Amino acid sequence: MTRALICGTFDPVTLGHADIIGRAAGIFDEVVVCEFVNSEKKTLFTAEQRLEMLRITARQYKNVLCDASPSMTADYVREKGIDVIVKGIRNVSDYDYETMISGVNAALNPRAQTLFMPCAGKYAHICSTTVREMLKYNVSLRGWVPDEVADYIAVLRV
Amino acid sequence: MTRALICGTFDPVTLGHADIIGRAAGIFDEVVVCEFVNSEKKTLFTAEQRLEMLRITARQYKNVLCDASPSMTADYVREKGIDVIVKGIRNVSDYDYETMISGVNAALNPRAQTLFMPCAGKYAHICSTTVREMLKYNVSLRGWVPDEVADYIAVLRV
Amino acid sequence: MTRALICGTFDPVTLGHADIIGRAAGIFDEVVVCEFVNSEKKTLFTAEQRLEMLRITARQYKNVLCDASPSMTADYVREKGIDVIVKGIRNVSDYDYETMISGVNAALNPRAQTLFMPCAGKYAHICSTTVREMLKYNVSLRGWVPDEVADYIAVLRV
Amino acid sequence: MTRALICGTFDPVTLGHADIIGRAAGIFDEVVVCEFVNSEKKTLFTAEQRLEMLRITARQYKNVLCDASPSMTADYVREKGIDVIVKGIRNVSDYDYETMISGVNAALNPRAQTLFMPCAGKYAHICSTTVREMLKYNVSLRGWVPDEVADYIAVLRV
Amino acid sequence: MTRALICGTFDPVTLGHADIIGRAAGIFDEVVVCEFVNSEKKTLFTAEQRLEMLRITARQYKNVLCDASPSMTADYVREKGIDVIVKGIRNVSDYDYETMISGVNAALNPRAQTLFMPCAGKYAHICSTTVREMLKYNVSLRGWVPDEVADYIAVLRV
Amino acid sequence: MTRALICGTFDPVTLGHADIIGRAAGIFDEVVVCEFVNSEKKTLFTAEQRLEMLRITARQYKNVLCDASPSMTADYVREKGIDVIVKGIRNVSDYDYETMISGVNAALNPRAQTLFMPCAGKYAHICSTTVREMLKYNVSLRGWVPDEVADYIAVLRV
Repeated sequence: MTRALICGTFDPVTLGHADIIGRAAGIFDEVVVCEFVNSEKKTLFTAEQRLEMLRITARQYKNVLCDASPSMTADYVREKGIDVIVKGIRNVSDYDYETMISGVNAALNPRAQTLFMPCAGKYAHICSTTVREMLKYNVSLRGWVPDEVADYIAVLRV
Repeated sequence: MTRALICGTFDPVTLGHADIIGRAAGIFDEVVVCEFVNSEKKTLFTAEQRLEMLRITARQYKNVLCDASPSMTADYVREKGIDVIVKGIRNVSDYDYETMISGVNAALNPRAQTLFMPCAGKYAHICSTTVREMLKYNVSLRGWVPDEVADYIAVLRV
Repeated sequence: MTRALICGTFDPVTLGHADIIGRAAGIFDEVVVCEFVNSEKKTLFTAEQRLEMLRITARQYKNVLCDASPSMTADYVREKGIDVIVKGIRNVSDYDYETMISGVNAALNPRAQTLFMPCAGKYAHICSTTVREMLKYNVSLRGWVPDEVADYIAVLRV
Repeated sequence: MTRALICGTFDPVTLGHADIIGRAAGIFDEVVVCEFVNSEKKTLFTAEQRLEMLRITARQYKNVLCDASPSMTADYVREKGIDVIVKGIRNVSDYDYETMISGVNAALNPRAQTLFMPCAGKYAHICSTTVREMLKYNVSLRGWVPDEVADYIAVLRV
Repeated sequence: MTRALICGTFDPVTLGHADIIGRAAGIFDEVVVCEFVNSEKKTLFTAEQRLEMLRITARQYKNVLCDASPSMTADYVREKGIDVIVKGIRNVSDYDYETMISGVNAALNPRAQTLFMPCAGKYAHICSTTVREMLKYNVSLRGWVPDEVADYIAVLRV
Repeated sequence: MTRALICGTFDPVTLGHADIIGRAAGIFDEVVVCEFVNSEKKTLFTAEQRLEMLRITARQYKNVLCDASPSMTADYVREKGIDVIVKGIRNVSDYDYETMISGVNAALNPRAQTLFMPCAGKYAHICSTTVREMLKYNVSLRGWVPDEVADYIAVLRV
């Protein structure tokens, strides 16, 4: 049995995140999607709202569990028995950054492997920063976040 | 059950290949390591020798099967019911090339996902081209290919 | 008739910006150089000062119009009938970032194309951040910003 | 009036090429698509066949002219009064290579500017090498080359 | 006689820094390791503590001098008669950034050359930001910073 | 005393090579410029002609020695007591390739360090392949190779 971890800030969850979650759900026996809560990092959505968006996104997959944690990734990986850390990669900047992070996690916890999932071309321009920018300008989020997440955000901001 | 594919020319099998095979064997239920035989590509070792090197490298893993095929990757993936194609990535040039190939395979066969495995730092300088260069200069292959592969090559070249 | 857009923060205008503006002016029928005013982003120069620097830089070109706008790029592009967004690219980090932004603009507004203009080698080390650093250390701006912009800044800071 | 050049080997013309040609036709007054004929480079299709594929692809655009030439790019640019050389860019390897070539052309002929057109995500995995590979394995070319080019190739290979 | 400069923020000194310092000490006649003190940049350790960590790290090398300075790099290079600026490079993002900085320094001070030292694979995942993150989570710093620096930090934080 | 190695095929010597040689001559006590002769690699110029071009280029530097060798780099480095291998780097593709080669040399011969010298922006588009292309089209080599190398080539080809 292989348990995979997808982690991030998810501020908010995008169609890119949803794609990685769905593809990982089709490969691994169990997928844990964990929002790492970092008290020093300012986010647009609260930790609770972001976890709710993850749940809305993942509820169609029986083998995906959503979680939030203040731990360091390597500690979380050990506690939860994670075998594989899955990272979506859009471009060379992502590749460089995630390669460094995978080295950190390998040093702290050699048991868990990091795997990179190349981002689908049609989602390569989507990131949470851009989505937050669009919220600022009141652009519709359809095509950027899962429809149900768009609905959830619309209600929050009424 | 997840069946992963590792494919390449393996001319010869290196410690980098062996590392990817071993790590994949620890993650996926079954791993098929397939040498794609391309009649137009000149290789130093014959298809049979390369397959034998794969077998020597993989025999310690119960869930790894070695194979050779003249098929196109996408056809092989369909015929064998492959779920995941695993590619080792050493640097940006590898990343660019394998991202393009993953797009080709996704277009021909959307069912199989490509995952990239970041190469361990200690193996990042190892590639088959370099090993062939060292053979030309009679440099020992210890530290570049698995020890038993080095023995196998030594016998071949006596 | 083709109308091109060059946009940025221009804090301050550099010789790199001036080169892109001049080259675009030689290619496209009309060039709009627009400073996007983002109330949350702290700048060293005010929006008015940066627009003045653009005017000083561009006044030698009859087909270049300078502007400032609080809009999102995609909205501005639609309102002004922009056909082409021109971006100067110095290196892979610029390439990655601008490729993502071009995808965002293509999604919001498929009519306008993004084109990248490779930066001239002699200007590849020039960016606004560096110029602001030099101002902090009282280094002369000759060779970093257009001469008339250097004069303008010198007067501001007397 | 701006005259743009798109050049390459086009062995064969792909949907990626067709996309760049179509987008350039919408931006520039005139677009010349030129196949540079290099007697030392082996191609799968003859120079005449490749030129025919370009004509099939471009005939829908009134402002696109197809040509073949044995000249060096810089000479052709000068003879034909080209203002802009347009290059499609899929990834960092393309970016690196084309940046170097743009420097060569700028040195030989400073009048003509090189512009990079970021490849649409959906075509980022398409290249002539892959298409030739698919021909070898008798894979349908629909989705890889323009439909009429696929028909033309099918007839050639009957 | 060649005098090399290694500069940075060193917040804190890592094994990656120590490796670059040691390798430079073996190549150049004199190596100056200078912490550039930037009053606007928030650091976890004070300028004095960071200088002390440099001294702890470098005291095994007779030809290495540690320093702290509020100057701009180019001014420091001129004042101290530096011939070579040595930069450790871990990946493409580092390469891009340091190439730009090397251009800045070449423009301000053509006499000093910048040389890049490729980071050893085993240290490629180590950076000060990660080490500060580990301090936050009380992870042991052995294997991330020189042992004596780990001891020094442990005492500071008692 | 530090002895540096610059190695390559030099088919032919370019202004980019000459720049790296001159800058290295200003940094290191002794510089050996070695053409590695590889019987399997086809070159436009003979080994003797390429060595002569190196001598013409380097004769202005008292501390530069030119050589030709059929050895593997790591063996040559050991035999000649080389301390530092210097490589010019123009872009990310060069960076990736030379990082891999530096790992190979470090594995075979840990004593010698590889240092990368970022290419001057004005020479970033110059490579031997391009120069050979220009010879084919009878373009003047002024501005691409050192003037005396251009004269030498002109005589050869009369």
